[in-house]
Amino acid sequence: MSRQWWQAECRPVDARAREAAEARQRQLTKPVGALGQLERVAIRLAGLQGRPRPCIERVFIGLFAGDHGVVEEGVSAYPQAVTGQMLANFVGGGAAISVLARQLGATLEVLDLGTVTPRADLPGVRQQRLGPGTQSFLRGPAMSAEQTLLALQAGRDSLLRAEQLGVELFIGGEMGIGNTTAATALACCLLDCPAAELVGPGTGLDGDGVAHKARVIEAALALHGPALRGPFEALQRLGGFEIAALVGAYLACAQQGVPALVDGFICSVAALLAVRLNPACRDWLLFAHCGAEPGHRRVLDALAAEPLLQLGLRLGEGSGAALAVPLLQLACRLHEEMATFAEAAVAERPA
Amino acid sequence: MSRQWWQAECRPVDARAREAAEARQRQLTKPVGALGQLERVAIRLAGLQGRPRPCIERVFIGLFAGDHGVVEEGVSAYPQAVTGQMLANFVGGGAAISVLARQLGATLEVLDLGTVTPRADLPGVRQQRLGPGTQSFLRGPAMSAEQTLLALQAGRDSLLRAEQLGVELFIGGEMGIGNTTAATALACCLLDCPAAELVGPGTGLDGDGVAHKARVIEAALALHGPALRGPFEALQRLGGFEIAALVGAYLACAQQGVPALVDGFICSVAALLAVRLNPACRDWLLFAHCGAEPGHRRVLDALAAEPLLQLGLRLGEGSGAALAVPLLQLACRLHEEMATFAEAAVAERPA
Repeated sequence: MSRQWWQAECRPVDARAREAAEARQRQLTKPVGALGQLERVAIRLAGLQGRPRPCIERVFIGLFAGDHGVVEEGVSAYPQAVTGQMLANFVGGGAAISVLARQLGATLEVLDLGTVTPRADLPGVRQQRLGPGTQSFLRGPAMSAEQTLLALQAGRDSLLRAEQLGVELFIGGEMGIGNTTAATALACCLLDCPAAELVGPGTGLDGDGVAHKARVIEAALALHGPALRGPFEALQRLGGFEIAALVGAYLACAQQGVPALVDGFICSVAALLAVRLNPACRDWLLFAHCGAEPGHRRVLDALAAEPLLQLGLRLGEGSGAALAVPLLQLACRLHEEMATFAEAAVAERPA
Repeated sequence: MSRQWWQAECRPVDARAREAAEARQRQLTKPVGALGQLERVAIRLAGLQGRPRPCIERVFIGLFAGDHGVVEEGVSAYPQAVTGQMLANFVGGGAAISVLARQLGATLEVLDLGTVTPRADLPGVRQQRLGPGTQSFLRGPAMSAEQTLLALQAGRDSLLRAEQLGVELFIGGEMGIGNTTAATALACCLLDCPAAELVGPGTGLDGDGVAHKARVIEAALALHGPALRGPFEALQRLGGFEIAALVGAYLACAQQGVPALVDGFICSVAALLAVRLNPACRDWLLFAHCGAEPGHRRVLDALAAEPLLQLGLRLGEGSGAALAVPLLQLACRLHEEMATFAEAAVAERPA
């Protein structure tokens, strides 16, 4: 493959702003480190935003939906039509992410990248359909190379629209019945790990269902075998439209200099793919939470991620990331508004 | 001791509202349980507020300060004058809790229950001084029985003022150089556990400092011995003004029917004391976070608490509880505003 857009350089972190933020944290009226992860996140955001006092006001949520051919193998507790039905719920305001976006005053962009039940008439849904869902990866590659490139570009385009709005944070969300199966297959491939170690109930499989899902994933890994030679090939053969769009969005975040807050298991797998495609993009990824899916912790560890929340979430949609936004905002406010020891005439600890 | 106010009955939880909230959660457009702890907290709040759709808008933070005689043993990284200096910072708006209260639109009430450096002139600080700090518990009881009763009552009075404002959530905060030593001594006594297992660095002791702190606590437990026969006696002999006030506030929360969101290690020890004094008060306590102090997890486990955050916090002031408020608010909004499967015409999973 010729050189692709995602191989271009990522925006460097501003070391000066980061150091200035570190110095400021040491002067605030609290024991150094007493605000734990919130201090580290404020310092990181300073480096990413290139200002010693970072700020998260405008948030953009790009929510990508797509269906998965592998659902024909019976790997999900829900019927496949739910993907399309949820698109109406997202724009209708009744889904979890709709409620959260409203509360945060965030922009919510909903994209249909290829569901099995297209609804061309649905106002508010951006139609960028790449097919009626992916193919089952037990029959061949889930996507063609062209579909994969278009899905990556769709994610990038979403981030570019976000950037036009001047947002300070990008959240990617996903909806796709069957996509924990695709994400687990990808994680097994990228981490070289048997399916039994990473597989989980997704939206609600029982024990038998989980065991069956693991067998389906193992069969796919055997089928594609040496053809899974790099992250792009893994994404094409085992992934899905919405997963590829997330990968493209995260890569574009790093290139355009917009911090991304990564949601749950599926988004974290997309983040791992993005880092494999362009390692420097790691700097731009913040991790919102560690969810209930067993493989999530393993993927986060592989990324050396320090998630903010652990609430047993397993919803997707970007909901876990949205729930972590107030923590980022409060971390920035504390960093900005707390008095220094000198300002407040409070004694520092003896050196 | 004759019957005391805190032994009076606690408000019962409204089982009907709780069940209605549980039923509603099962109908919302998400897999059951997919919002993890946020579902459980919304259901609990429904039972506490007596309405199927709970709401957290008005928040009250009662911040209690007091000094500790045991600081003369060299158990803190900071000079004792910092307690009083921080009072000025709290009302001046520069402390972490001041920033957080502003962001949340919460009422912040600051009480001086007895610092070593009184500042009678400090506008905005409520003066309810019970002495120039406690006595060192290596010389005798930290407080007299009368001081203990007055401090418990001061906490109750703070909650009663909060209730007058019609608040939906009470947060207790504390400030007192040396109070992780007092709280650890109390936890050792209540959990029948050696100091070495629970002791930690507080605001920033090094390894030698922590070992010394453990020895001081063991000496105190040996000195008071059988006199520590119940929770009131433990509080009087090992506690402090601000710790007793927190205990009184939590007990009053349960009696008046105001949910309390418990902050860090010291507040959790106060919560444990409150539950020992009147077990039914446990229902009214929500736990905000598990902090960095090693004993915190043990105290939370003893309370069967499920904290919302784990961010490595070790600041106190009520700051960790304030940071968890947006999660409670979003949990309520999701519960209130999400569509049901029927409303959104989304297929439920097959039974």
